Amino acid sequence: MDALSRVVVVGAGLIGSSIALALRERGIEVDLADRDPASLRLAEELGAGTRWYDGKHPSEPADLCVLAVPADAVPATLREAQRARLARAYTDVGSVKCRPLAEARKVGCELSTFVGGHPLAGRERTGPSAARADLFLGRPWVLCPAPETGRHPTDTAAALARACAGEPVRLDPQEHDHAVALVSHVPHAVASAAAARLRDAEGDELGLAGAGLRDTTRVAAGDPDLWAGILRANAGPVAEVLAALVGDLQALVEALRTAEGGGEEESAEGGKDADPVADLLRRGADGRARVPGKRGGPAPSYAAVPVVIRDRPGELGRLFAAAGEAGVNVEDVVLEHSPGLPVGVAELSVRPERARVLTARLRAAGWSVHG
Amino acid sequence: MDALSRVVVVGAGLIGSSIALALRERGIEVDLADRDPASLRLAEELGAGTRWYDGKHPSEPADLCVLAVPADAVPATLREAQRARLARAYTDVGSVKCRPLAEARKVGCELSTFVGGHPLAGRERTGPSAARADLFLGRPWVLCPAPETGRHPTDTAAALARACAGEPVRLDPQEHDHAVALVSHVPHAVASAAAARLRDAEGDELGLAGAGLRDTTRVAAGDPDLWAGILRANAGPVAEVLAALVGDLQALVEALRTAEGGGEEESAEGGKDADPVADLLRRGADGRARVPGKRGGPAPSYAAVPVVIRDRPGELGRLFAAAGEAGVNVEDVVLEHSPGLPVGVAELSVRPERARVLTARLRAAGWSVHG
Repeated sequence: MDALSRVVVVGAGLIGSSIALALRERGIEVDLADRDPASLRLAEELGAGTRWYDGKHPSEPADLCVLAVPADAVPATLREAQRARLARAYTDVGSVKCRPLAEARKVGCELSTFVGGHPLAGRERTGPSAARADLFLGRPWVLCPAPETGRHPTDTAAALARACAGEPVRLDPQEHDHAVALVSHVPHAVASAAAARLRDAEGDELGLAGAGLRDTTRVAAGDPDLWAGILRANAGPVAEVLAALVGDLQALVEALRTAEGGGEEESAEGGKDADPVADLLRRGADGRARVPGKRGGPAPSYAAVPVVIRDRPGELGRLFAAAGEAGVNVEDVVLEHSPGLPVGVAELSVRPERARVLTARLRAAGWSVHG
Repeated sequence: MDALSRVVVVGAGLIGSSIALALRERGIEVDLADRDPASLRLAEELGAGTRWYDGKHPSEPADLCVLAVPADAVPATLREAQRARLARAYTDVGSVKCRPLAEARKVGCELSTFVGGHPLAGRERTGPSAARADLFLGRPWVLCPAPETGRHPTDTAAALARACAGEPVRLDPQEHDHAVALVSHVPHAVASAAAARLRDAEGDELGLAGAGLRDTTRVAAGDPDLWAGILRANAGPVAEVLAALVGDLQALVEALRTAEGGGEEESAEGGKDADPVADLLRRGADGRARVPGKRGGPAPSYAAVPVVIRDRPGELGRLFAAAGEAGVNVEDVVLEHSPGLPVGVAELSVRPERARVLTARLRAAGWSVHG
């Protein structure tokens, strides 16, 4: 009953194209749309479905229309899609649920056929070239039915999540928005605030940075306008969590100023538990210990074959040609070399049972293979 | 003159043992000391030097004594080492410089033979079993001479840094302490504050966490007592940087509360630049862009050339051979394909001025090049 045979995906970015790829793998027909013709062409060439042109009116509505557009574009896009009768059910993939729902209600969308959705998956990189059919493997896919939502769209969106190997999770829109404030939006704001301190730093100072700073500020590289939209769309829950966090940091500033003024002996009198500096760090370590690890989903495990390479044109070509002659398919490659240094390492990922033959053949061809 | 032939390392933890291993690789004699006999035995077994017993009084002072102990233990350890005349010069590896120096002066250490040092290197894991001779490879090694410090200890500590393949960098103690507040201590405090919010979260909420949260909070797993000591030892600079950051976050809370109350239209009147939410995120993205890449030094900017590839042996060989024939050096490559799918994308990073010729040559050879 909820089996999918045809799906319309509006938005051929990372998420939309990844959904489309996953559906195509299961033989489900996908009609793709995107404002940007270049994204649309690339997504189509990657096998993410068939381009769908604005002028074309399908004779029959699809099983489901997925709005893979930014959260603030969902209400208008939904209204348009519903007017064109693109599908029997509609869902989105936005990272905020309450406000777009209220907006959709306001602009006259038909909410009985719509269920909010949010697959919790993403990558550093954006666009269809970064899309992967296994992006959602084992990841939660939140469904947030509104009071008006019928059973059919929720079941259909759950079938979509399962077709993408995600795990459907039902939450109230309010629960969802509080959760993402806590695990995503506030950490993003905080990373941005830490990174903003570096804008006017001296070069000498930045030279002392290491892996800790890189990790702590990584998400701050995200698109500022996109994220400003997300924070504003989820303003209430973000402000609530952030205000408590600001309170903790303000107390830390005060404790450090007391310590700087030589007042530390006094504040230490109450024993370790009364130390506000260690207290925040302990609560942080406790909270950190609750963060789930890398997805348990079975990403195929490859063997890494590290090969020393010289920094000159054609070197990688010769290496991959040698791998090809050995009949070994290289699944991934990571290059480790400082530009300007004469040598580096190419780490070739191959199926474990192929590592031995690749190593032997490369060595026979004169390559320096390690590990 | 500053060649090292014998070094005493006090403290056989990660840093002390790694220094000792690097020195041993260069044939330099190392005497190791540690309060903990188990650490000492393990470090010796790993080849990090010879155990040095408290009772043993070397007939002659070593070239250098390295105090690889926590910053707050440096003054007392230095005084003790100087009384035993262990070496002709002394240095430490602590992550804060001003306060331990002032303390050392107060307890009567001889500062003419001491130079503060701080190798900017570390690992998730601690203790001698995590030690690596190449831990300091290409990393900055800050030296902070005090006004009393003679030339000899500074030159000797620089020779130590170079023997460990680190890069000696001279900074005033004040400059150093401000820099590490900015790139290490404040980011740590902020990561702890974000992680502390998770302590009382619902399991459902944490289930939505992804890689962003893991990275942002990773350092919060560090030892709370060790880090409380570091933040207190560097209280002044940390409080100064943190107070500015708290100001930014407080302004963000207020902007979000205004947006929540429907006041967003009003605040948006001043145009994009007047949007305090996007403003902080933009400053964060700017600051993040200044964080040095993996191997240190600003990451050179390459142009990415995405090429559609088929998942079959030899395909990458043919692609790189074509790039080599075009005379273009591929600096990096990222493969994007879901295992099992027939096609993927190889994103080739090349010098920006080479992107056009590569694209043209690859297209002429029949490759599908996008972007």
